[in-house]
Amino acid sequence: MRTVSILGATGSIGTSALDLIERAPDRFRVRALTANRDARALAAAAIRTRAELAVVADEACLPALREALAGTGVEAAGGPAALADAARLPVDLTVAAIVGCAGLEPVLAAVENGGTVVLANKEPLVSAGDVILDAARRGGATLLPADSEHNAIFQCFDFQRPERVRRVILTASGGPFRDWPLDRMAAVTPQQAVAHPNWSMGAKISIDSATLMNKGLELIEAARLFPIAHERIEVVVHRQSIIHSLVDYVDGSVLAQLGPSDMRTPLAYCLAWPDRMATPMEPLDLVRIGRLDFEAPDLERFPALRLAREALAAGGARPAILNAANEVAVSAFLANRVNFLEIAAIVNDTLERYDPPAPQTLEAVLAVDARARTIAEARVAVSA
Amino acid sequence: MRTVSILGATGSIGTSALDLIERAPDRFRVRALTANRDARALAAAAIRTRAELAVVADEACLPALREALAGTGVEAAGGPAALADAARLPVDLTVAAIVGCAGLEPVLAAVENGGTVVLANKEPLVSAGDVILDAARRGGATLLPADSEHNAIFQCFDFQRPERVRRVILTASGGPFRDWPLDRMAAVTPQQAVAHPNWSMGAKISIDSATLMNKGLELIEAARLFPIAHERIEVVVHRQSIIHSLVDYVDGSVLAQLGPSDMRTPLAYCLAWPDRMATPMEPLDLVRIGRLDFEAPDLERFPALRLAREALAAGGARPAILNAANEVAVSAFLANRVNFLEIAAIVNDTLERYDPPAPQTLEAVLAVDARARTIAEARVAVSA
Repeated sequence: MRTVSILGATGSIGTSALDLIERAPDRFRVRALTANRDARALAAAAIRTRAELAVVADEACLPALREALAGTGVEAAGGPAALADAARLPVDLTVAAIVGCAGLEPVLAAVENGGTVVLANKEPLVSAGDVILDAARRGGATLLPADSEHNAIFQCFDFQRPERVRRVILTASGGPFRDWPLDRMAAVTPQQAVAHPNWSMGAKISIDSATLMNKGLELIEAARLFPIAHERIEVVVHRQSIIHSLVDYVDGSVLAQLGPSDMRTPLAYCLAWPDRMATPMEPLDLVRIGRLDFEAPDLERFPALRLAREALAAGGARPAILNAANEVAVSAFLANRVNFLEIAAIVNDTLERYDPPAPQTLEAVLAVDARARTIAEARVAVSA
Repeated sequence: MRTVSILGATGSIGTSALDLIERAPDRFRVRALTANRDARALAAAAIRTRAELAVVADEACLPALREALAGTGVEAAGGPAALADAARLPVDLTVAAIVGCAGLEPVLAAVENGGTVVLANKEPLVSAGDVILDAARRGGATLLPADSEHNAIFQCFDFQRPERVRRVILTASGGPFRDWPLDRMAAVTPQQAVAHPNWSMGAKISIDSATLMNKGLELIEAARLFPIAHERIEVVVHRQSIIHSLVDYVDGSVLAQLGPSDMRTPLAYCLAWPDRMATPMEPLDLVRIGRLDFEAPDLERFPALRLAREALAAGGARPAILNAANEVAVSAFLANRVNFLEIAAIVNDTLERYDPPAPQTLEAVLAVDARARTIAEARVAVSA
């Protein structure tokens, strides 16, 4: 019986994790569930899973949460301090699925606590990588990636013999504009960009897939998660998204993890690790899939990938600036304020205009993030 | 420093193993090398690797071996008893690469000895599976498969949690007649059949690839090697032979091993296991490969696969009869005595005409093998 807390229980990752946990009630006992504002969904999940504690980050939603939980025996709390306290409750497993920089403080609290922390959002490793990894070392926490690509690498990587790994190969779907010429890409609409060929995802991550910035951020995460030099991490475009990533060994063996385009497979791996648990997914049918294709990413048409690799190589504050500027640029694109190709241009210009020293604390990371957003916003205003 | 003996050191597997061992002289110390008749090549290999002992199975070749080794300090011996003695020399690792039933007695001796035994031919597990597995249990031997497909499964299979494996998926190239209609297949020549699309191999195994009997024999081996019900082992045709096999888990994850079509990768895995060692192979280039295809095997045009599955399900002497009849039928095809489609028909008819009790000893296995060959020969004579 494992104790589990889910930070961000009402988002898509959180509900997938809850779905798996509810299918295996003999394996998990839920301690805390948190959400940003959705008191109703949070209360319903807490009651279903017999959680001990439910926390809304926005204290204004606490009365609604209290009301929904009245008489159920589930404790209710609200506000950022209560959220961090929930993250510090001792558990075997924390699923960290809070979107954006709001998740950094609770993730850090969970990591300092030790135990296993399932990372399901990019900011902890991209923007605050050094801080989080340092805390994990000190707290003795094990970080498990829920992202399908990193989860695939985790399943194939021999951590006992990292010196035998020659390359890590991240696969990228290539997004909906994989085959489009540059001039057509300048005119794509947000509606075209959010239509991801393989996964159903939120708007932000769909745009990141279309620009390949998503793969760039994953490249940075992979370099943090796995003991391998960043130059040895390659990206290959694989349009079907069936092979989630590969690890190449010195003997010529390449190990790969394949699976459905459903977050529940990597999440189940994280929840049950080092064991495995059943999921409701259909078995992979290679004959039905028929073929798998591979091609090189085009860094000319997809400069975001190059920018991410440069930020990774430079280190320090660069990945946090890349991530913050990209968020601003994607929001501006979704609001029809800038065109698709300007997303990478805004990130590039922000990185050129801002080069602070490496942040050593979470507060410093948040300050870099905020300043990068201001600079990126100013850059958007020029284009818009 | 590991001690190694190679049984069958002058064949293609043996020379590949020697190539790897000679590239890593700090990791291996060679005790015995054996060959059937090629005293010159055996002596050269023994001198290069500073082996302790060289053995020719055919005693008539012993004088030549003695002469070639005179003054080198390598001991020379000959005959079947000397071969079995060589197999019994205590070593960390035995590479068992003697072709055909001649290899059974030395393999059994090595397995009874304990240590790690690398299996590189089919007979030990197909014809004498129960006897060899029983001896491995008693001797505490670890069996490592050098065959690329089984080696792939070995690399992906969680032996600590076999109950979490849902399926094993063996890949088959499909052979050169994958897309041919039945009537054209009846007229194929030995020259057409030995031209394997991906691997360069001997004539016998090339024909087995063309009939899919090779995959049938591998299916039987897989069922012996891995703790999984034989019904859960599937075969999928994958013409590029890049993915060597896959293991499907209950959570939807499918682990696969990919690599070049070169025996040195799986052999290196066996030699270094549980570590890995470098090989001279180029890294896998998925972009250059471009695409991987999958299709279902056609049991109508390739009945050998169905015959093998039936023999596996029935157990006892059936796999040994299948293997013996197939060898006779393939020889007859290579001698232009029967046509390509008759290979499976001869195997089928031999299985129908001969149904002895399960052999419990190696002698009984050899008797079943000999009797099956006689029956298959008689059946060939009817067609020829």
